[in-house]
Amino acid sequence: MRLRVDLLPREELVYPDVVLVVDVIRATTTAACFLEAGAEALYLVPSLEAARAFKDEDVVLAGEAGGLRPSGFDLGNSPREALEAPVGGKVVVMATTNGTKAAHLAGMTAKHVLLASLFNAHAAARKALELATEEVAILCAGKEGRVGLDDVYTAGVLAEYLGLMREVEPDDGARIALAVRRAHPDPLEALSLSAAALALKGVGLEADIPFCAQVAKSAQVPLLSGRVGEALIFKRG
Amino acid sequence: MRLRVDLLPREELVYPDVVLVVDVIRATTTAACFLEAGAEALYLVPSLEAARAFKDEDVVLAGEAGGLRPSGFDLGNSPREALEAPVGGKVVVMATTNGTKAAHLAGMTAKHVLLASLFNAHAAARKALELATEEVAILCAGKEGRVGLDDVYTAGVLAEYLGLMREVEPDDGARIALAVRRAHPDPLEALSLSAAALALKGVGLEADIPFCAQVAKSAQVPLLSGRVGEALIFKRG
Repeated sequence: MRLRVDLLPREELVYPDVVLVVDVIRATTTAACFLEAGAEALYLVPSLEAARAFKDEDVVLAGEAGGLRPSGFDLGNSPREALEAPVGGKVVVMATTNGTKAAHLAGMTAKHVLLASLFNAHAAARKALELATEEVAILCAGKEGRVGLDDVYTAGVLAEYLGLMREVEPDDGARIALAVRRAHPDPLEALSLSAAALALKGVGLEADIPFCAQVAKSAQVPLLSGRVGEALIFKRG
Repeated sequence: MRLRVDLLPREELVYPDVVLVVDVIRATTTAACFLEAGAEALYLVPSLEAARAFKDEDVVLAGEAGGLRPSGFDLGNSPREALEAPVGGKVVVMATTNGTKAAHLAGMTAKHVLLASLFNAHAAARKALELATEEVAILCAGKEGRVGLDDVYTAGVLAEYLGLMREVEPDDGARIALAVRRAHPDPLEALSLSAAALALKGVGLEADIPFCAQVAKSAQVPLLSGRVGEALIFKRG
């Protein structure tokens, strides 16, 4: 099984098989939490405007502007909040720029797209191997076109699980991610050093960082199951 | 001093200050070797065709097609060969796709562009700090749009030197490069695992890999000093 890690989304990337999309602070962590809380489906959209287009439907709007809940939205993008949110049986529309962009790119060519984080790392790696025939790719979302230490670290944890479960041939990106994982035995240390964590601290949301640093706490793995307009529809995989 | 590492060239990148371009297997290693051998200047061009346009001038043509010397060229792209080449006082035209592309991108906005490798790592880091006022950026060339373990490792070695000489604020990319450096105490091990090294082995040029893995053996640092047509002109910095 080929194991590939792309450290940033790039338009020319082609995925023949399975892709794990990682935006660990916070979109893909929060996505697993909404499924934990009983959400029926997640609609990932690329902007607040695209989310507001669903306002008159029976959905829950979640998103962030500068880290915080946008006006007119039901929820922010905090995984702690998502886990407790009354979303049982509902559709949650998640506005997330970097995560949606990466998932959209992966979905253009891949057979299967999963949302992965540290929180669901073990389950996501297992599901990826179940679905894959030749390659598991991990696509790090990054932050506005810059590589994210948090996402690459998470890719390293996923790569480690994948390598434990199956013999894999890692590409250069996978070797880089594994090295980052090995350099930081403590996930919270790695995540805390990232630019994404610094941005959260800046808006008083630093409590989300230790939440996102929890490893393999959830068996919920969002799987791309369709599209409606600009939205990518994820359901439990 | 800000310390930034970009793991791949991207067109939208803007460099306010100094950039160290890294294509360790083999272009930036070979470039230092040509200066060691006494070359007066290096013209980096993006293709074999662009190099052949200089054929009637008093220059030495160096390049590779599938790792080997192209027909009509005086030299290949081997640093071992470059070090012994009779290029004293001459202009060497180097056809190198990934290295030239990265250097060209850096040169569009940066104040100073240097070519760095393990071979000249110490001198390149020192020169970068001499020239910089606010930021040293390290731009990894990669290989046809894929991140290279060899280049990111070299960025880590450069980042380590920079951090020893000056207090630096590393970005996420720099932290990733430093982690890769720490995961592989032996440079030859890191370089040997890269896709670039595998490609060289495939054409019988594996002896270039231990050459490229030598650290801080040269004080020659090519510095971008001008352009002529498609060519970027580098002279000793």
